[in-house]
Amino acid sequence: MTRWFEDIVLDEVFSLGSHNFEADDMVRFAALYDPQSLHTDREAAQHSQFGGLVASGWHIASVAHRKMVDALFAEEERLRTLGHEPGLSGPSPGVNSMDFPAPVRPGDVVSFRLVVTNKRHSNTIPGWGLLFNRLTGTNEQGQLVYEANLVGFSKLRDYRMPWWQKLLQALTRVPIIGPLLARRA
Amino acid sequence: MTRWFEDIVLDEVFSLGSHNFEADDMVRFAALYDPQSLHTDREAAQHSQFGGLVASGWHIASVAHRKMVDALFAEEERLRTLGHEPGLSGPSPGVNSMDFPAPVRPGDVVSFRLVVTNKRHSNTIPGWGLLFNRLTGTNEQGQLVYEANLVGFSKLRDYRMPWWQKLLQALTRVPIIGPLLARRA
Repeated sequence: MTRWFEDIVLDEVFSLGSHNFEADDMVRFAALYDPQSLHTDREAAQHSQFGGLVASGWHIASVAHRKMVDALFAEEERLRTLGHEPGLSGPSPGVNSMDFPAPVRPGDVVSFRLVVTNKRHSNTIPGWGLLFNRLTGTNEQGQLVYEANLVGFSKLRDYRMPWWQKLLQALTRVPIIGPLLARRA
Repeated sequence: MTRWFEDIVLDEVFSLGSHNFEADDMVRFAALYDPQSLHTDREAAQHSQFGGLVASGWHIASVAHRKMVDALFAEEERLRTLGHEPGLSGPSPGVNSMDFPAPVRPGDVVSFRLVVTNKRHSNTIPGWGLLFNRLTGTNEQGQLVYEANLVGFSKLRDYRMPWWQKLLQALTRVPIIGPLLARRA
């Protein structure tokens, strides 16, 4: 999120737009990262359990991520044109779950949405918070095709580091005792 | 896994080989699916929290999947040349967790390993079992850079469908009552 941790409202739905899954893109991705015939070969895929070509789950997850990144950049741009300073998001420490409840087939147009389901201050990085994001993809028939629960970092706007933490941070730059302290952070 | 459900030994380590993450590949993937400057721009990435270009987590996950698919195909081939019929694996219903504990930088050679940590019969699909797989990636310094807990389907070799289940399956093809039964399956 490009909003500051304090400004993030739980359960607000962000529409990330939609993506048309084209057969060529599905095959191109799968040829590199998931070369199973149900993802790469239209003919052979007809004899698979899906009766035709379907997108690799990793392709769906990667496209969903792209939609999220694009939306974050657009929101950042929007905030800047309004004269606001956008918040800062950090790298994602991981993914809590990913599900693919229905297949994505060539020509399927999937709409992606993002909801922050929970947030809390980080226990390990002062001045940062953790966001628990649910990212979903739904096809034109309203079927859920992707659901991921992701964790992200978001910076606190109003954070002021206490004096003892500043001291601790300065001490981690001192030889010998620094590495010992850093290990505990 | 291309072994039958019954033949899968828990905690056995399968080496999936290694992958050299090249800067060009990292940038090419990120340009399509994760266009943040720490993944796409060598110059700008120097000012990021990692101090240089790092691979997108979705790129790491996709490469890890490719290594797994390649290893499964090789194992299938090996079993066939030994005169055995390889087992059948089904599509993955999802991912239970993914973590990226350390960054992957250009030139990093990451070794991937697969371990089946648990298995059980499927509650919903007769004749199939579920495998709980842990897929890890470790760099040349021995640092863990990727850990995923994945769920996969694996077919039972010795499964014989009970008569009442065969009857139920036949009835799902009958109009009107069929769809009602299928909904409960």
